[in-house]
Amino acid sequence: MSSAVSPLAPKSLPSLPGVAGVKLATAEAGIRYAGRTDVLLASFAPGTAVAGVFTKSRCPSAPVEWCRERLGGGRIRALVVNSGNANAFTGANGRAATKLTAELAAKALGCSEDEIFLASTGVIGEPLDATKFGAVMGSLVARGEEGAWEAAARAIMTTDTFPKLATRTAEIGGRTVTINGIAKGAGMIAPDMATMLAFVATDAAIAPDALQAILAGAAERSFNCVTVDGDTSTSDTLLAFATGAAGHPEISDPSDPALTGFAAAFESLLVELAQFVARDGEGARKFVTVEVAGAESDASARKIALSIANSPLVKTAIAGEDANWGRVVMAVGKAGEPADRDLLSIRFGDLRVAHRGARDPDYDEATASAYMKREEIVIGVDLGLGQGKARVWTCDLTEGYISINADYRS
Amino acid sequence: MSSAVSPLAPKSLPSLPGVAGVKLATAEAGIRYAGRTDVLLASFAPGTAVAGVFTKSRCPSAPVEWCRERLGGGRIRALVVNSGNANAFTGANGRAATKLTAELAAKALGCSEDEIFLASTGVIGEPLDATKFGAVMGSLVARGEEGAWEAAARAIMTTDTFPKLATRTAEIGGRTVTINGIAKGAGMIAPDMATMLAFVATDAAIAPDALQAILAGAAERSFNCVTVDGDTSTSDTLLAFATGAAGHPEISDPSDPALTGFAAAFESLLVELAQFVARDGEGARKFVTVEVAGAESDASARKIALSIANSPLVKTAIAGEDANWGRVVMAVGKAGEPADRDLLSIRFGDLRVAHRGARDPDYDEATASAYMKREEIVIGVDLGLGQGKARVWTCDLTEGYISINADYRS
Repeated sequence: MSSAVSPLAPKSLPSLPGVAGVKLATAEAGIRYAGRTDVLLASFAPGTAVAGVFTKSRCPSAPVEWCRERLGGGRIRALVVNSGNANAFTGANGRAATKLTAELAAKALGCSEDEIFLASTGVIGEPLDATKFGAVMGSLVARGEEGAWEAAARAIMTTDTFPKLATRTAEIGGRTVTINGIAKGAGMIAPDMATMLAFVATDAAIAPDALQAILAGAAERSFNCVTVDGDTSTSDTLLAFATGAAGHPEISDPSDPALTGFAAAFESLLVELAQFVARDGEGARKFVTVEVAGAESDASARKIALSIANSPLVKTAIAGEDANWGRVVMAVGKAGEPADRDLLSIRFGDLRVAHRGARDPDYDEATASAYMKREEIVIGVDLGLGQGKARVWTCDLTEGYISINADYRS
Repeated sequence: MSSAVSPLAPKSLPSLPGVAGVKLATAEAGIRYAGRTDVLLASFAPGTAVAGVFTKSRCPSAPVEWCRERLGGGRIRALVVNSGNANAFTGANGRAATKLTAELAAKALGCSEDEIFLASTGVIGEPLDATKFGAVMGSLVARGEEGAWEAAARAIMTTDTFPKLATRTAEIGGRTVTINGIAKGAGMIAPDMATMLAFVATDAAIAPDALQAILAGAAERSFNCVTVDGDTSTSDTLLAFATGAAGHPEISDPSDPALTGFAAAFESLLVELAQFVARDGEGARKFVTVEVAGAESDASARKIALSIANSPLVKTAIAGEDANWGRVVMAVGKAGEPADRDLLSIRFGDLRVAHRGARDPDYDEATASAYMKREEIVIGVDLGLGQGKARVWTCDLTEGYISINADYRS
């Protein structure tokens, strides 16, 4: 694992306020790592609403299946997250481990195991020894506090080089509510969905179905717009929790005008967390925004944007600070979406490098090369066909990605 | 560009016999490279049949469009190939460059420009100065010889570390015919199609439509089963030529039993060339075969095989000699094809590492690690669902790929 912090990390970590109704504690359960925390318990006030979005992998982890089966209940009392072992492709052992973990938490909190949600991240295929959670569960419950957000974000890291935290406030019915979020993820990251793990809690009072609707929409425009390597994890999990402690009447209609500001703040927080993931892409040295316009539809624009953002040749060119826009042409061409080479324009930032099927007459290699030296690169593509547009975030592909991933297990 | 020869290259180059009716010559036109040949002229006896398969990119190069428009004619007198510049995304200039190149060759050979086929490989988006071909065209025609296959293979290389040549013989109507092929390609390689450039010539007498049918089928099971980085070039071109000089009556039905042996030899040659491409994958140190069985259909198996073969995480694990079969599970899961985690089995070579949704009870890390140190790795997946199967070839993903591609243009 890499130890140096990504050069694209935020310069300082935000200090998150507490969210009334949420208590956090972390511990060293010794799942895989030594000398660092690797388990997080978030406990919630009774009646807290829960919503979730999960990986679309056909081979999901045991915790993903556990959560999916319980999401319909709509309420949560605790979330247990461990790093170091994904509890994925672990067969009957994996299912037993999820059940044991939930039982341990339910017993410690005095609630039903169906109100316990789980997430695991780390190596796939290794049996997870959930008995290790037993040794720390009582202490996790006893030590829970509202302010431990940074510790929580650190406990769920794997190859992440910095903890990912964000906070927002919004007004609902005259009350100020808080939204806090944490995320982890740096590799095995692609849309559908790109999350790895992310957890967002608010003291707003929002019914589960409404929370689910807000979460699903915001995830589509945030985590599902970020890619590092095009690889979709078995374990991607994004959960949202609404404790209701802010005290306004519970809102059950997601299109209630009272939620407008909240939904915007919520999505903005998810975008910030998602961008952190691209900024912490394994080996990343540059943060890349791909903007596609003029496509036949938004869906088509999105496929083209992802084709560019996932292209190893585009990503290595960016790593090499090479204004190789020809590879952007290649990536547009291979997306399989409607495109007319002779209408296509490409820009790096505000610098148009190709126009209507050929290099821009004003193209200047020195200017383009100077732009590529920046830490944040925008690749813009205009297909000239229609009104469809999309924006995705990614990072460059460097030797660091290879070295991190060539020996991840060893 | 890398200068060291891939460790996966064949230990020696085959010596190719001549193909009656085909003359080859190479020259230094100074397109981009200094001190090496960069243009190939292959001239053919009058009446030579031609067949072709091209990139599915929506942004194809000017030479690809040129060839597509002329393929219907079915006959070829000469092929002009240059390396160093792809003449792709070059707009009107690119179309003018193809026309000028064809005119120069047609004039030198005394034939119609519609019987001239073209291919270009190299940087995208740079204008190609086709006047440079004028200076060498007369000499290329004058110096053509039957035996210059290795020189031909070398002239079309870009980031290739070794020339790619193969030869076969077959019997048609009691006559022995020769099939020779050359290819180039090491990056920007993915199916649909994976070729980059490949040219196959035979002295058999086969009508254009029959040659096209044989070529299309064989390409599907060879070049379209190889991937290096999932990036599809704008310029992929696979052409086949049948001079008829062997003297047997021309065959016009691709299912004529007289062609059975020929078709098998032809496909075997394409497979060898396609595997050379994976063996020369940029930065490759390991040759990887992915075999998928038990899928719902062959098409589904193929999508899953490509998902594995294109996964950066699988490929970096192989580079790191890490038996990280969990990433194979991930890649199966993300393919989006029917899969049941609890029926899935995975093997490395003959070593079953995962069975029915969990690590194999007999799994031994030391044995698996020892296997991963081999130069040739087989990843086998059995989905346990049906009879669909597929096999694709790829290579590992190493720091070498990054360094080659980060500064390709500079």
